[in-house]
Amino acid sequence: MRIFGIDPGSVRTGYGCIEPSGSRWALVCSGAIVPSPRSAFPEKLQVLYLELAERLADARPDCVAIESLFHGLNTRSALALAHARGVMLLAATQQGLPIVEYAPAEVKRAVVGFGRAEKPQVQQMVKALLNLPEIAREDAADALGVAICHAHSRTLQQALSRTGQR
Amino acid sequence: MRIFGIDPGSVRTGYGCIEPSGSRWALVCSGAIVPSPRSAFPEKLQVLYLELAERLADARPDCVAIESLFHGLNTRSALALAHARGVMLLAATQQGLPIVEYAPAEVKRAVVGFGRAEKPQVQQMVKALLNLPEIAREDAADALGVAICHAHSRTLQQALSRTGQR
Repeated sequence: MRIFGIDPGSVRTGYGCIEPSGSRWALVCSGAIVPSPRSAFPEKLQVLYLELAERLADARPDCVAIESLFHGLNTRSALALAHARGVMLLAATQQGLPIVEYAPAEVKRAVVGFGRAEKPQVQQMVKALLNLPEIAREDAADALGVAICHAHSRTLQQALSRTGQR
Repeated sequence: MRIFGIDPGSVRTGYGCIEPSGSRWALVCSGAIVPSPRSAFPEKLQVLYLELAERLADARPDCVAIESLFHGLNTRSALALAHARGVMLLAATQQGLPIVEYAPAEVKRAVVGFGRAEKPQVQQMVKALLNLPEIAREDAADALGVAICHAHSRTLQQALSRTGQR
């Protein structure tokens, strides 16, 4: 079970893929997709779409976990981000991948323990949970956080389903 | 010069293509793309993307004119629509088509003469301007309206550039 996390952004989109390793989860790959700021908006969408499709094909995950839209954003930013999320959902769907969504506060709660954690706390916890040699960049760490959030929720679901089977 | 107009919607997306015919503009094709309401949202985005790409490939336009987001929409609708617009801009960009955007009020002003025109007035004027045998459905008429808006603006630009050349 490989989980591919996405922290969507119209400027920088973080991604990070994890898989089980013994009793923990380990890093498969992570990084960021950053379209040229000088490109026109539709071209930026195309770069996001093509590069994300390539990363997904390389990582061969079993599912995609993506951060849902943060309602505190101003309208202009939220609308640009929603356009970007549209092409990301498309890239995942075209590879037949199931998609799950988590709100930023759910991710922080799953990774750090409370929903209002700061970015550096997420980075530190992602480093510790995945046993990384160094701290991941902010956008990659957020994407890994989304993947971890889903991993924890799956673990919980599996534990619950085992309980149910007893 | 063929202009492909799009009236984007996450439920129904109207499209309509026009080309010059003598001193007027004439219909090439029009219709609507309507993903199944029972599909999951990412699947709806995929249907919009694939069907729009097919219509564009069939119509072989020189450019795409798309309605910009209407700010009066509530946040939830606007965000869904922005996701849908993202995959539409992608479909057009992947076919190398230049994209122009017009606000709904600009379209109404270009087609009917004032920015607060009602939908039936747009439908009537689109029928008259393109010499259609019957009234186009609302979403197709709106898409044809966007194309006409761009046609008028191009006509204006060409007239201005001719004036400049004198």
